[in-house]
Amino acid sequence: MPSSLNLAVIPGDGIGPEVIAEAVKVLKATGVDATVTEYPFGATHYLATGSILDQSELDALAQHDAILLGAVGGDPQDPRLKGGIIERGLLLKLRFAFDHYVNLRPTRIYPSVTSPLSNPGEVDFVVVREGTEGPYVGNGGSIRTGTPHEIANEVSVNTAFGVERVVKFAFEQAEQRRGKVTFVHKTNVLTYAGGLWQRIVQAEAANHPSVDWDYLHVDAATIFLVTNPARFDVIVTDNLFGDILTDLAAAISGGIGLAASGNINPDGTFPSMFEPVHGSAPDIAGKQLADPTAAILSVALMLAQQGHPDAAARVSAAVEADLASRGDAKRSTAEVGDAIAAAVASAG
Amino acid sequence: MPSSLNLAVIPGDGIGPEVIAEAVKVLKATGVDATVTEYPFGATHYLATGSILDQSELDALAQHDAILLGAVGGDPQDPRLKGGIIERGLLLKLRFAFDHYVNLRPTRIYPSVTSPLSNPGEVDFVVVREGTEGPYVGNGGSIRTGTPHEIANEVSVNTAFGVERVVKFAFEQAEQRRGKVTFVHKTNVLTYAGGLWQRIVQAEAANHPSVDWDYLHVDAATIFLVTNPARFDVIVTDNLFGDILTDLAAAISGGIGLAASGNINPDGTFPSMFEPVHGSAPDIAGKQLADPTAAILSVALMLAQQGHPDAAARVSAAVEADLASRGDAKRSTAEVGDAIAAAVASAG
Ligand SMILES: CC(C)[C@H](C(=O)O)[C@@H](O)C(=O)O
Ligand SMILES: CC(C)[C@H](C(=O)O)[C@@H](O)C(=O)O
Repeated sequence: MPSSLNLAVIPGDGIGPEVIAEAVKVLKATGVDATVTEYPFGATHYLATGSILDQSELDALAQHDAILLGAVGGDPQDPRLKGGIIERGLLLKLRFAFDHYVNLRPTRIYPSVTSPLSNPGEVDFVVVREGTEGPYVGNGGSIRTGTPHEIANEVSVNTAFGVERVVKFAFEQAEQRRGKVTFVHKTNVLTYAGGLWQRIVQAEAANHPSVDWDYLHVDAATIFLVTNPARFDVIVTDNLFGDILTDLAAAISGGIGLAASGNINPDGTFPSMFEPVHGSAPDIAGKQLADPTAAILSVALMLAQQGHPDAAARVSAAVEADLASRGDAKRSTAEVGDAIAAAVASAG
Repeated sequence: MPSSLNLAVIPGDGIGPEVIAEAVKVLKATGVDATVTEYPFGATHYLATGSILDQSELDALAQHDAILLGAVGGDPQDPRLKGGIIERGLLLKLRFAFDHYVNLRPTRIYPSVTSPLSNPGEVDFVVVREGTEGPYVGNGGSIRTGTPHEIANEVSVNTAFGVERVVKFAFEQAEQRRGKVTFVHKTNVLTYAGGLWQRIVQAEAANHPSVDWDYLHVDAATIFLVTNPARFDVIVTDNLFGDILTDLAAAISGGIGLAASGNINPDGTFPSMFEPVHGSAPDIAGKQLADPTAAILSVALMLAQQGHPDAAARVSAAVEADLASRGDAKRSTAEVGDAIAAAVASAG
């Protein structure tokens, strides 16, 4: 456990810098000893320099204890940014290079927050999304591209090594929570990948007799997320299904303005990376309209993972209190950050 | 346009036979001249005979104008049915053998039906799901299976031929509706398949200047399905994303008890197949608890596709009236079917 937290911060594009400023403000308010080094990566940096993230920059990031990222991605209409090159060249590159095999995405419906569901019940679950395999590996190709005879393939790659470690993490999470794992896949169609996942979940379940588990097809899981989200404790699933389910989870819990995530390398070989689930929202950037709560909750996740559980709990409690006190008056990004930081400091 | 509708009916397993009985009752009430031939396929048939669907049975089905299917699939805990063999050996086999490249799934929130969303707005869209490609092609494999060194791959196969025809269908649907197509994919990650889809959507859009279109990543699409489902008119997407989005769509519109679907071969080379989106629900089978509405609405879709628009409209109207008149009293499967059939007959 490091005595001083050596943190890399990538504010990124759009609303990224605004929400990160508040997240860092709250981090400082905790009193946790931290050094912050900013990196300029993102679409803006790429358009200015032609470089997204090179090896020496990756090496520099690898020296940190953890990474806090705002949001990356420029104007979706800009032809120079087409096909998600920033997302793949930066975000996915970091997840793969730093072996972030656990993408941890908690979902809670805070009592004071309005869900689009009329009767959501008590919702408090985490999605443990695999982060280094599946259809995200970039293993595809096309022939006769751009002709009427084009064939384009995408290969989902799944390994026992990769699935075992994330499933183990999920069962361990459940042991510290309400003792329930829901494995989500599409085993009736994706029989090879699904078979591998299923065997590993079954084997891992035998190692965790105190944990109950069940299985849902991904399509059925979306139904339960809107009809009975309170049924979930820990969801474990593959990279693509996890991507889909966590946006839906964020939506039912009151919006991606609140959804935090950790891209975690539990082995500690590489720095883990924490980021709000939301994107860079270029349309509202620079206007102090963005809600920094997801970025601030990402700091709480980071503090917990970095061995500062008390500071993490103080940030979470301050966010919860802030959410409870929100009226109809619209506050600026900085006003929300100030309020939460003040609450964290005074609880310190 | 056939003068007498030569219909194959596959009641299937679980609640399938119950809901199909009502669907056929309503079909008869329309007065449309139809011959019904029942086929016993499903899990029960497989467990009794060892056969799911052989070539001669496929040839027999091919002679019909259309197929109406209830639901297939037995007890998910039964080891003899493991890994979705009935789903793949029957349902997917028919979709592929009969080139059902359009999987059409309408979603409406009927004024009288309770959505889990507190404020859904006016929801009336169709999902045009590709039915013969993508990750559903069964093109995968594994090595070192069952060992700690297992690798399991799944290949999503996408062709210009396959994508073009379904995208064209979607734009034509939009021309007959509110003139809006939303293309859903994950182009920032699945760049080969996504690139192919994107180019084809762009090209097809140029052929349909009266249709507006936009693009959503599949994760973002799930957010809009719960926060603003009224924004959608026609969604066009791949086989797997369509599977996921249509269950979610069914959930927000008041449940899969109402969701109908058509597996359509628009060329008319093979019979199209109509089925409720719901499964066989073995837990409530034989108790007259199932809602036959999805099966009945599947009959309406079939009648429309088979050149009986007036009869289709009468069935839809009768369903809508029945939904509007539903109180808290629980009716049996047959009571719902009787009521709708009576309304259809009296409107005839
Ligand atoms: C931006 C994109 C590549 C990313 C993903 O698909 O993982 C995002 O949607 C997320 O969920 O973090
Ligand atoms: C049963 C299953 C193979 C099927 C699918 O995945 O297409 C079902 O979920 C559906 O949506 O019709």
